Amino acid sequence: MNIILLSGGSGQRLWPLSNGVRSKQFIRIFRNEDGELESMLARVYRQIISVDGEVGVTIATSKKQVSSIKNQLGDRVNICVEPCRRDTFPAICLAAVCLHDEQGVKEDEAVVVCPVDPYVEDSYFEALKELSRMAETGNANLSLLGIEPTYPSEKYGYIIPVSGDRVSRVDTFKEKPDVAAAEKYIAKGALWNGGVFAFRLGYLLRRAHEVIPFTDYQDLSARYEELEKISFDYAVAEREKRIQVLRYNGGWKDLGTWNTFTEAMEEPVLGRAILNEACENTNVVNELNIPILCMGCRNMVVAASSDGILVSDKEQSSYIKPFVEQMEQQVMYAEKSWGSFTVLDVQEDSLTIKIVLLPGHGLYYHSHDHRDEVWTVMSGRGRAVIDGIEREVAPGDVISMPAGCRHTVSAETELKIIEVQLGENITVEDKHKYPL
Amino acid sequence: MNIILLSGGSGQRLWPLSNGVRSKQFIRIFRNEDGELESMLARVYRQIISVDGEVGVTIATSKKQVSSIKNQLGDRVNICVEPCRRDTFPAICLAAVCLHDEQGVKEDEAVVVCPVDPYVEDSYFEALKELSRMAETGNANLSLLGIEPTYPSEKYGYIIPVSGDRVSRVDTFKEKPDVAAAEKYIAKGALWNGGVFAFRLGYLLRRAHEVIPFTDYQDLSARYEELEKISFDYAVAEREKRIQVLRYNGGWKDLGTWNTFTEAMEEPVLGRAILNEACENTNVVNELNIPILCMGCRNMVVAASSDGILVSDKEQSSYIKPFVEQMEQQVMYAEKSWGSFTVLDVQEDSLTIKIVLLPGHGLYYHSHDHRDEVWTVMSGRGRAVIDGIEREVAPGDVISMPAGCRHTVSAETELKIIEVQLGENITVEDKHKYPL
Repeated sequence: MNIILLSGGSGQRLWPLSNGVRSKQFIRIFRNEDGELESMLARVYRQIISVDGEVGVTIATSKKQVSSIKNQLGDRVNICVEPCRRDTFPAICLAAVCLHDEQGVKEDEAVVVCPVDPYVEDSYFEALKELSRMAETGNANLSLLGIEPTYPSEKYGYIIPVSGDRVSRVDTFKEKPDVAAAEKYIAKGALWNGGVFAFRLGYLLRRAHEVIPFTDYQDLSARYEELEKISFDYAVAEREKRIQVLRYNGGWKDLGTWNTFTEAMEEPVLGRAILNEACENTNVVNELNIPILCMGCRNMVVAASSDGILVSDKEQSSYIKPFVEQMEQQVMYAEKSWGSFTVLDVQEDSLTIKIVLLPGHGLYYHSHDHRDEVWTVMSGRGRAVIDGIEREVAPGDVISMPAGCRHTVSAETELKIIEVQLGENITVEDKHKYPL
Repeated sequence: MNIILLSGGSGQRLWPLSNGVRSKQFIRIFRNEDGELESMLARVYRQIISVDGEVGVTIATSKKQVSSIKNQLGDRVNICVEPCRRDTFPAICLAAVCLHDEQGVKEDEAVVVCPVDPYVEDSYFEALKELSRMAETGNANLSLLGIEPTYPSEKYGYIIPVSGDRVSRVDTFKEKPDVAAAEKYIAKGALWNGGVFAFRLGYLLRRAHEVIPFTDYQDLSARYEELEKISFDYAVAEREKRIQVLRYNGGWKDLGTWNTFTEAMEEPVLGRAILNEACENTNVVNELNIPILCMGCRNMVVAASSDGILVSDKEQSSYIKPFVEQMEQQVMYAEKSWGSFTVLDVQEDSLTIKIVLLPGHGLYYHSHDHRDEVWTVMSGRGRAVIDGIEREVAPGDVISMPAGCRHTVSAETELKIIEVQLGENITVEDKHKYPL
C-alpha cells in the first residue's frame, strides 16, 4: 500500500500543548504497549506498519513540521514539503507527483490519502488496505472510506451512498448540515466523510495536469505558490461520477478539540498533578516541572506547558481558537531538528533559554548583531566553534560570545546548555548564518 | 498606642502563593490608593499608621519571616523573633517583655495584641485605639474586641457578654460551637472572638512571671524552647474574671482560605489571564510569566506561582491543607532579606536559579563542597569577592566558581544574575559561611 498522510494544523485548538510550531499530532499523550508515551503521529505510523509491513508512507506537510516528524519517526518515512500553505488539492497533487517522480510509484498503483490524526483502532488501517485494493482493481475512479455515524454531528461532511451495502456507489455529498438534516441523512444510510480517498496514481496525475500546468515534481514545487487554494473535495470528489464508498464501523475519533482529545487519554492525568476526590471527569496534562492541584473540578480540562495554562470546562474548550489568537504569546518551547529549546526567563534586556542538543546534531554557525550570549554547559559533551576556533565543551564550561561573534556547538552526547542572551530588543530575526 | 502584631502561619492554606517560607500576609494582592499592589502586612501597617501616627508597632514572629517583614516595611517596625514555634501565650509574653526591656514601654501603658492578617476597614483600628484607652484607664484587666457576627459560623470562638451594651463585662467564652449552638449564642448577643486583646503591660508581665521563671528579655528568649505550648485564651483569658469587651460592627474578614481571600480581591484577575464570558465568580492570581486562559469556570480560584498551580472550586479550597502537606515541593521562589531567588530549571545534576539582589544588599560570603557554580550577570551593577579578590560586576560578566571557592556578590543597583549550579545531589545544606 502507498499512503499519503496529510499533516497540517496550526495547533490552536489544543493550546497550550500545541502552538504555532507544535501541532497536536506531535504531542506525546498516548501510551503504547510498552507503556511509553507516544504522539498521534507515532501511534498512527505504528498502526499502519502493523497492518502492512510493506507500506510506503509519505507525509505531506509544511516546512515547520519537518523537524518534529524526523524527531519522532526518523528517516523511515518520505516527507513531501509544501513550499507554502495551499489547500488539500494542491497538497495531494504535490505528494502524488512526488510519489511518481521521486519514489517510482507506477500510474496503475493505488494511493490512499488519509489525515495524520485519526484516533482509531487497527481495523481502520485494515479498511484502508481494502480500500487500496478496491481502488487498484475496481471500476471506480475514487474510493472513499465512510465512517458509520454515531450521532447527527454538525461537524462533518456526509457521504450519501446509493445503497446500504458494505461497498456502494456514492450518490452525492452533503457539506456540514444542521442536526435535523444530519438526522435525515443518517436515516437514509449516510456516512461521515473522514477525509480518506484512494485512487490509482495515474488518475490523480491526470486531474492535476488538467488544473495545474507543470512538468515534474521540481517544477510543481517551484510553482506551488501560484496555485489556487482549493480543496480535494471541491476540485475532484464533487466533480467525479465514478465514486465508491467502503463502510467502516469501527472506533473512530476526530481529536480536534480538548473535549474529544481528553476522551482518548487512557489515564486522567499526564505529568505532575493531584486531583482530590471531589473532582469528576477531569483531565490534566502537565508538561511543567511544578505540581498542579485540582479540587472539586467537574468536567474540566487543565493543561499546562511552557506556553501557558488552560483551565476550561470541557464543552467550552471547543471555543478556544479566538482566545489563543489574541494572546500572541512568544513561543516558550519548541522542538527543533537538533533538539529543543525552552525559554526560562524573560527580562527587559535579557532572555534565558535552556537548549537541549541531540547527539550528532548541532546549531547553525551564526552570529547576532545586537546581543551578547553566554553559554553554561549543564551536561553532555560536544564541540563548539567560536570565531573559527574549535574547542571541546563539557559540563561547567562557560563560553561568552559578544555581538558579532560567530558561534556554533554540536553534541557528541546529549548536550544541555543554559544560554543567557543580553541586549536591547532581543528578536529571533537578529541572526546571520554562515557556512562552517 | 503600643501594638503587637502576631505574624504566624505556615501558609499552606493559600498554596501555591504561600509556602513554607512565604506566609499569606506577605502576598501582594491588594491595591493601595496609588494603584500599587500591597500585601496584607503592608495594608494593615498603613491602616494602623493612618489612625495613629504615634503608634509603636512590634511584630512577633518567627525567624523565617524576618526577611519578608524587613523587605516590606523596612526598619519602621520593631521585630520580636521567637527562637522557635510555641503557642500565643509564650509569643505574647516574649513580645511584652521585649516592649518593657528593649523599647522602654512602662508597666502602666496599654498594649494591644492583634493578628497581622485581619482584612478590615480603618474603623477597626479606630476601635483598637479605643480599646487601648479602655485598657489603660478602666478597671478591667483584659479588654477584648468582639466582632458582631454576620452568620452562625463554626470557625470562630464566641465571647458571651453580660449585656448588649457597646462596652460590656464578659460573662464567658465558648470555643468553636456547631451552627445550632452558634445561633443560640448570637440570639443572646454573643460576639466573635477576633483574637484581639488589650491590657496594661504590667498585668501581662505579672501573668508571665507566674507561669514562666525568667529574669529579662534575653533570659526569656534563651529559655524559650523549654516553654509549654499554651494559648493566650487558655493561659490568661479563661482564667481572668475582670474582662470587658468592645463591640465592633464594621467590616471584618478572616482571609484564611482561598474562598475568603478571593472575596477581598478588588479585581478578579491579578497577573496574566483571560477569562471568557462563560466564566462566573472566578478569581485568578498568576505570578508566572505565561498566560492563563479560563473558559467556563464557575466559582473557581486559579492560582499559579513558581511553586505550583491550584485549580479549585472555591468551597473545596478550604480542604487544601493535607494535599499541600503531601506535595513536599522544593521551594521554587523565596523572598530573602537580600532580595529573592527563583528556581528556573531542575536537572539531575544541575539547577538553574535567578537571583535578584536589592541595592545595598549582598549574599553571605560562602562556599560549597560538592558543586560548582557559574554566575551570568543579566542587569545591574555591584561588587563580587571571589576567593578574597574583589571585582566589579556588570551585565554580561561571567564568574565561574568551582567547588570550594569562597564567593559573594553585593548590589549597587538592583542586580539580576543567572546562577547555574553543577554537581551531584545539590542541596541547600552544602554551604559554609565565612566572615568577609
